[in-house]
Amino acid sequence: MPPTGPVDEITLVERLAAIGWKGSRAVLLGPGDDAAVLRGGVAVSTDLMVEGVHFSFDWVTPAEAGFRAGAAALSDMAAMGVEPEALLVSMALPAGDPALGEALQRGVRAAGDRVGAAIAGGDVSRAAGAVVLDVVVVGRARDRVVRRSGAKPGDDLWVSGVVGGAAAAVAAWSQGREPAAAARARFAAPPDRTGLGRSLAARQHASAMIDISDGLVLDARRLAGASRASLRIRLDRVPVDTAAAGDLNQALEGGEDYELMFTAHPKGKARILALGRELSVQLTRIGTVGEGTGVELEDHEGHRQRPGRGGYDHFADSSGGQG
Amino acid sequence: MPPTGPVDEITLVERLAAIGWKGSRAVLLGPGDDAAVLRGGVAVSTDLMVEGVHFSFDWVTPAEAGFRAGAAALSDMAAMGVEPEALLVSMALPAGDPALGEALQRGVRAAGDRVGAAIAGGDVSRAAGAVVLDVVVVGRARDRVVRRSGAKPGDDLWVSGVVGGAAAAVAAWSQGREPAAAARARFAAPPDRTGLGRSLAARQHASAMIDISDGLVLDARRLAGASRASLRIRLDRVPVDTAAAGDLNQALEGGEDYELMFTAHPKGKARILALGRELSVQLTRIGTVGEGTGVELEDHEGHRQRPGRGGYDHFADSSGGQG
Repeated sequence: MPPTGPVDEITLVERLAAIGWKGSRAVLLGPGDDAAVLRGGVAVSTDLMVEGVHFSFDWVTPAEAGFRAGAAALSDMAAMGVEPEALLVSMALPAGDPALGEALQRGVRAAGDRVGAAIAGGDVSRAAGAVVLDVVVVGRARDRVVRRSGAKPGDDLWVSGVVGGAAAAVAAWSQGREPAAAARARFAAPPDRTGLGRSLAARQHASAMIDISDGLVLDARRLAGASRASLRIRLDRVPVDTAAAGDLNQALEGGEDYELMFTAHPKGKARILALGRELSVQLTRIGTVGEGTGVELEDHEGHRQRPGRGGYDHFADSSGGQG
Repeated sequence: MPPTGPVDEITLVERLAAIGWKGSRAVLLGPGDDAAVLRGGVAVSTDLMVEGVHFSFDWVTPAEAGFRAGAAALSDMAAMGVEPEALLVSMALPAGDPALGEALQRGVRAAGDRVGAAIAGGDVSRAAGAVVLDVVVVGRARDRVVRRSGAKPGDDLWVSGVVGGAAAAVAAWSQGREPAAAARARFAAPPDRTGLGRSLAARQHASAMIDISDGLVLDARRLAGASRASLRIRLDRVPVDTAAAGDLNQALEGGEDYELMFTAHPKGKARILALGRELSVQLTRIGTVGEGTGVELEDHEGHRQRPGRGGYDHFADSSGGQG
């Protein structure tokens, strides 16, 4: 979905960060990564989900929406290699519908239970229309955190799992169709990559890492930008989810996957593949890091192209679509 | 404003806490206080503001709305006696209005600057209608945190500053009038009680504390409930804001003040009054803690009454009013 607004999400986030951020002794790592890191290795991130923008109750049950919001928030910690300790949940709810709030909360709790993080607090408000869920995750970095900015020319580019399934579900719903069960499941229950992220950080395998929340290409561009490097993605190596029915565009631009993308020195290849087997997570080398900037796509014949500003941009998309 | 919904905010918060919370080694203090406290004394809280529920852009500028959201979130840390270290800001914005996001962010930053807490991160989304701001505060407890649950029969009940001014502004706006400048200022720029809260905690003056976000009576009921004690409020001692034009009901039930209410052993009276002089904060003994439960109001003739479920309840109010 090409952005239609005058300012896209990446630009706005940068502009907001420039306003919010100034040096602080208490903050070791400020805006620009998946989580902030404070003194003492405290990592914290927040993830906002808006009904009608990120999900619809025509698509998923309230418990599924809560689970998805919790899993998405936890994915930010996984992408830093940090162990999550606790969640806070803010929600805006229609007046007179406490059962909805309880179902959402149960869903977030289930996502927290998957990684041993309890819900330690939150806030609740009446909604002015759309239901809003903001899930805060607090974690503790026991090792070096893995930032977006550490990719070096010559590194390999890796991705966990398969991509495009959740976007295929969104595409089906947006067209008034019911998605295939496998695609629906990929949307409703994002994978947990906490263990993978922790191990990549603890074993110092990954030079840079990000979670794929907004699409492989868009998040690759973020990682490339933070690392002041370029990323070349080999299209024939992208592990397209069978639930995406071979749709490479869903895999590249769809977003919603919550898989991890990371870079690593080529000498780590065997150890990374062994880690994948150990954790039963598919890990695929999909490209390389080079000099320069931006993202380049290369097909099986070696033809290269610069992608458009693909990847789903929640902010710029004002076409009325959801997802 | 009496609640009209079937489940009020206190009840819903309790029901959500029961779902979200289970024992966790990482969480020292879970739901039920102004902030959660994790291992290592990390305190974290989150405060959700919804356009059309908590504020209106007919009332305040975007920068004022941001400042108010930041100040309200920071008030939770003050109420625990904890020093804030960093903020995270999640916002849902109309597509194509980055200037609004920047103004909100500048407002939150100004509130953070007042206490030396930088904005370390956040999230941004397109709004589905109302603008939403969720401000997360992370702090570090250097002393014992002051909980809501420590009030003991025989303690005095204290309140900082004056109350009712912000509610008077909301009442004026709701009636289509422009509030007096002093009342408007009380709404747009809540006081900073960080230093007061920190000192009360460090000097072990306060046995229990809460911030008055939803009204003196409602928050007194919360403190009484957490402490399994009763609170008696002497109506003639309540420091009604001159901006509330003597309206005791605004002071008791209006909310939005972000002052601190705390309990303390009577022998601490002189030291507390000295602290107020030191910090130039008015501190008033407005009542006492007793056995039993709930809140009792006593007038100057000694007549006592149990108040209705007063204090503004954002969730239960479905009368269409804002505030």
